[in-house]
Amino acid sequence: MLSFVNDYCEGAHPEILRRLGENNFVKTVGYGEDALCAAAKDKIRAAFSCPDAEVYFLVGGTQTNAIVIDSVLAQYQGVVAAASGHINVHESGAVEACGRKILALPHHDGKLRAEDVKKLCAGFYADEAHEHMVFPGMVYISHPTEYGTLYTLDELKALRAVCDEYGMKLFLDGARLGYGLAAGGVTGADISRLCDVFYIGGTKVGALFGEAVVFKKECAPAHFVTLYKRRGAMLAKGWLLGLQFDALFTDGLYFKIARNAIDAAARIKAALREKGYEFLIDSPTNQIFVVMENTAATAFREKVACEVWERTDAEHTALRLVTSWATTEEDVDALIKTL
Amino acid sequence: MLSFVNDYCEGAHPEILRRLGENNFVKTVGYGEDALCAAAKDKIRAAFSCPDAEVYFLVGGTQTNAIVIDSVLAQYQGVVAAASGHINVHESGAVEACGRKILALPHHDGKLRAEDVKKLCAGFYADEAHEHMVFPGMVYISHPTEYGTLYTLDELKALRAVCDEYGMKLFLDGARLGYGLAAGGVTGADISRLCDVFYIGGTKVGALFGEAVVFKKECAPAHFVTLYKRRGAMLAKGWLLGLQFDALFTDGLYFKIARNAIDAAARIKAALREKGYEFLIDSPTNQIFVVMENTAATAFREKVACEVWERTDAEHTALRLVTSWATTEEDVDALIKTL
Amino acid sequence: MLSFVNDYCEGAHPEILRRLGENNFVKTVGYGEDALCAAAKDKIRAAFSCPDAEVYFLVGGTQTNAIVIDSVLAQYQGVVAAASGHINVHESGAVEACGRKILALPHHDGKLRAEDVKKLCAGFYADEAHEHMVFPGMVYISHPTEYGTLYTLDELKALRAVCDEYGMKLFLDGARLGYGLAAGGVTGADISRLCDVFYIGGTKVGALFGEAVVFKKECAPAHFVTLYKRRGAMLAKGWLLGLQFDALFTDGLYFKIARNAIDAAARIKAALREKGYEFLIDSPTNQIFVVMENTAATAFREKVACEVWERTDAEHTALRLVTSWATTEEDVDALIKTL
Amino acid sequence: MLSFVNDYCEGAHPEILRRLGENNFVKTVGYGEDALCAAAKDKIRAAFSCPDAEVYFLVGGTQTNAIVIDSVLAQYQGVVAAASGHINVHESGAVEACGRKILALPHHDGKLRAEDVKKLCAGFYADEAHEHMVFPGMVYISHPTEYGTLYTLDELKALRAVCDEYGMKLFLDGARLGYGLAAGGVTGADISRLCDVFYIGGTKVGALFGEAVVFKKECAPAHFVTLYKRRGAMLAKGWLLGLQFDALFTDGLYFKIARNAIDAAARIKAALREKGYEFLIDSPTNQIFVVMENTAATAFREKVACEVWERTDAEHTALRLVTSWATTEEDVDALIKTL
Repeated sequence: MLSFVNDYCEGAHPEILRRLGENNFVKTVGYGEDALCAAAKDKIRAAFSCPDAEVYFLVGGTQTNAIVIDSVLAQYQGVVAAASGHINVHESGAVEACGRKILALPHHDGKLRAEDVKKLCAGFYADEAHEHMVFPGMVYISHPTEYGTLYTLDELKALRAVCDEYGMKLFLDGARLGYGLAAGGVTGADISRLCDVFYIGGTKVGALFGEAVVFKKECAPAHFVTLYKRRGAMLAKGWLLGLQFDALFTDGLYFKIARNAIDAAARIKAALREKGYEFLIDSPTNQIFVVMENTAATAFREKVACEVWERTDAEHTALRLVTSWATTEEDVDALIKTL
Repeated sequence: MLSFVNDYCEGAHPEILRRLGENNFVKTVGYGEDALCAAAKDKIRAAFSCPDAEVYFLVGGTQTNAIVIDSVLAQYQGVVAAASGHINVHESGAVEACGRKILALPHHDGKLRAEDVKKLCAGFYADEAHEHMVFPGMVYISHPTEYGTLYTLDELKALRAVCDEYGMKLFLDGARLGYGLAAGGVTGADISRLCDVFYIGGTKVGALFGEAVVFKKECAPAHFVTLYKRRGAMLAKGWLLGLQFDALFTDGLYFKIARNAIDAAARIKAALREKGYEFLIDSPTNQIFVVMENTAATAFREKVACEVWERTDAEHTALRLVTSWATTEEDVDALIKTL
Repeated sequence: MLSFVNDYCEGAHPEILRRLGENNFVKTVGYGEDALCAAAKDKIRAAFSCPDAEVYFLVGGTQTNAIVIDSVLAQYQGVVAAASGHINVHESGAVEACGRKILALPHHDGKLRAEDVKKLCAGFYADEAHEHMVFPGMVYISHPTEYGTLYTLDELKALRAVCDEYGMKLFLDGARLGYGLAAGGVTGADISRLCDVFYIGGTKVGALFGEAVVFKKECAPAHFVTLYKRRGAMLAKGWLLGLQFDALFTDGLYFKIARNAIDAAARIKAALREKGYEFLIDSPTNQIFVVMENTAATAFREKVACEVWERTDAEHTALRLVTSWATTEEDVDALIKTL
Repeated sequence: MLSFVNDYCEGAHPEILRRLGENNFVKTVGYGEDALCAAAKDKIRAAFSCPDAEVYFLVGGTQTNAIVIDSVLAQYQGVVAAASGHINVHESGAVEACGRKILALPHHDGKLRAEDVKKLCAGFYADEAHEHMVFPGMVYISHPTEYGTLYTLDELKALRAVCDEYGMKLFLDGARLGYGLAAGGVTGADISRLCDVFYIGGTKVGALFGEAVVFKKECAPAHFVTLYKRRGAMLAKGWLLGLQFDALFTDGLYFKIARNAIDAAARIKAALREKGYEFLIDSPTNQIFVVMENTAATAFREKVACEVWERTDAEHTALRLVTSWATTEEDVDALIKTL
């Protein structure tokens, strides 16, 4: 059966496996202090135009979110996020397990609006009792969002402005960042300039696992290595992360393979549109939220594995189709043929 | 230069890489709910004679220690450990970061003595103010210990008895368990029978990464999956862990490659002994703590990379040499030739 | 100036001060193991018709909320609360500081609706990914709420039914419980029967400080004394709490003085109504939310200290007036005279 | 029966009760923002010669220790303490519950030696793996110690020097500070000059409850009010703390009543010495550790309530007698008469 369930069901780009084989019996120093990690960090700094940034490699997204938020916030602060944010819904309370509160705001197709954040902050500081409340200390956004949508440059600038006004940090969860950048609009340089910290997802974009956290120099927590070791996130063979990111950021591989997912999604969306289907959300990235009549949806799912996103009304269902760096032209053709 | 620095500087056993390549483009369900994980769990249950045990795969040792301790203890309890225990010294306070206190006792070549634990417990319950103290709720041991030593079956039984007497759980950190079992003495079945929970180290014994946690059925925490997701330990591509442990526990590969480290260490120890060297600790596993005159130690380290363990007196230095599943006969020959 | 700002700006009922003087040089055993605490617990069990309940005395409300929630929930669980709940807004993230997530739902005049809770739970368990989410493990309500409103017996029963259906505990924050009970409707026996745990506020109802936590026997956490000591909530002179609650629950003093606040509020509300004022919320307890034209509100506040609750529209302001056990008839007369 | 069990079994100095009565119906602003707190803070700053210090009032000792340690330390740091320190033994793991590790060192009659701390720090920074360990970030001492002993000025300076050398904060737990100061030696000005933060115990020295935390200006955590609210330590009627400390620091009452305990202890010690008794520890403060033959100890305890400290050998028992601000001359006479 065809599968468009998610973007993390395959292993890694073959170049990564090739290099794993090549490096397998090279005795390498542990804990990320190796040359592969150093090289990968340099390539990331170059790719994102942030020569002074501090880069660290962690293993997974939930881990990265919780550790970054916990490390950057003061104890009297919490993190502002869209109610639909991954940290607020699907991370088993990992942020709260670190003692931090999420200050949830309504989302708009997965996005947080600067004006909502501003209103929250203004209200907070206007409240005489605000010392009995959790201070807004950081804004968390995902880009692409959980709905596949992207912030525009203006939206990102507006969030930056609110952060500056109220002394907050801006943190961008880039679990699917490759797909976001490949879709155009905001660039890597925009992100490194406007955010205090962000991460570049490897797990969903060609790596076996791994997320690269990029801190603006002045925002990097002291002894971050100890902080993530303390949260159980340090890999003994840290070079596994360096090797993967070095491969991904050599000759723009990361962006090239991300592009594949966007192209595949575009072909599928065009075919769906042609057949008269509508979309629940207009996602420019690798997630497609197509609405079908219930019976059509059921029939479709017998041929194509994918997630039921929600019932949009009594007769209709929105399905989520996800493409990835590994989606083949053949699979896209086959999918289109089923329509 | 020759290197006997540690047992985690190479990648993985080639069979693991082979299977990674084979499985790379198979679309596999995420979060450890796949067939590879299920198969690996069955093989582990068989290898450790614990058909009812619950098995989970985590990524690294510090993570596993903290999560197991946090999940099994009640909030009024702490964990008894040797002062030299990895959790007490080299895990950046990960156990305390989960809110748990380590009740440290003196070690004897890295081992905890049942009589010391008994004394602590007896004193605790005899103290009228013990409700103002941290209850001993679990005993943590590493096997092999950080000093390469092993518990005897009698020692393990004695610890079990104290745990039973005082209502404590027994947790065995098996980051190097393969080497311990290959060295003889206590068996896997002994461990699964006597401990409430233990883990089987993959990172140091042939895997790229990964530790397999084995809970006695009645000791498995409810919703452990949610608990480790909450601590950021869940791998999206959980099948990477299943695949590795399935490979390691197919046809006894784990035990076979662990044996290689023990044989290599035995040859090195014999050669050192023949040359008249003494040992700081009599380790039966893959760690060798040899004492050399300072100048000899310096000269040796120019040819063989290894860790300075401690200055034993003004004129002598103890060096730690570590063999592994990946140590070659050629390297052992070369090392012996330097003596 | 007259003051109707809150119900915790005076000290304690004179009977408490009298008994403090009487007991001052009696050498009393520490940490709440004294006869005064024992007597007070018995009187509370009698007053709330729960002869088997376990009663503990803590110092303040935020402390009590966080410790009860942390002690009763499993680590994979969070607490469902109205978004307006004190724990979600005005406790500086104390619940999250213990590692627990608040699952906030919309409020209705400060109240949580059973149907909303049911919908959340049904959705949670229907979600295939719910092991990646925080399990609803407890429902937190305040009675009276932060808006002075009260749950009806039917509403309380409906919440109990949802809790039973989904295996959740029901926790009632009674910081102002005395005023709630004095206002009629739900009784103490109803509360002890329907809730797994609740607390009886002393701070706002006649004591200098102190809250009495009442656990249904089967819901009392093991070693709760150690748990609250661990959170810094144990008073060396625990008998200060026993003495106060013993005084408050001797001859129904608690209910008598709570009644005073309700009577005073009723007189004020009647007078306001007579003058044509409207109310933002129809509160039957000791909080009055009266709406005035902005200029009238400003003039009023020059004579009567009270809190500005919110601007209801461009021309109107809602003020909050609070009566208490200590409100005098003279002050009520004087307030009414200002209208 | 006579009682010399501890120094917290009575209520408060009568002057405090008098002022409680006087202030009882004065409507006072909550949360410590009142004039009584402000006045008390000024008096403390004057009494301890630290005009720029920030002073806060918390309720109890365990709470204060955990909150100060948690607020001042960075997340990668732990607190160095004597193994006998109250935080390490009798606070139910409150420090660890905040995620902090205690780095315990051997004690010498309850005291920590600067040279031991220095050795720990030197070893830590010399260790190549120290980023995998908990950084020493603060030194915790109690003065008087749990053994009634006092640091000399030189010892305190030596600890200060180690703290400066290794970038650590010095925190003095003054649960019994009044008795320490009344015994002579180190002064309040010495303490405020040499420590980054200390607290002045009220609970054991004349108050119903309450501890005054004094931060060197540059060491005061940002938004400390929110931090202690978050830990459940804020009293709604914060003025109760201000009132008590204002009374205690008016006309040197605190020092005067502490002196009473020292004088009483001196008389008892002289009488014991005269009778030929020896002391387990030579405590200059209000705790007396007298050694008696077992039968004599038993007989003595039939007339005088006191704590059995330890069995010093098969035939002897050390008893602990504690005097306080409330000890009367009559009780001392009666005690001496029993000898």
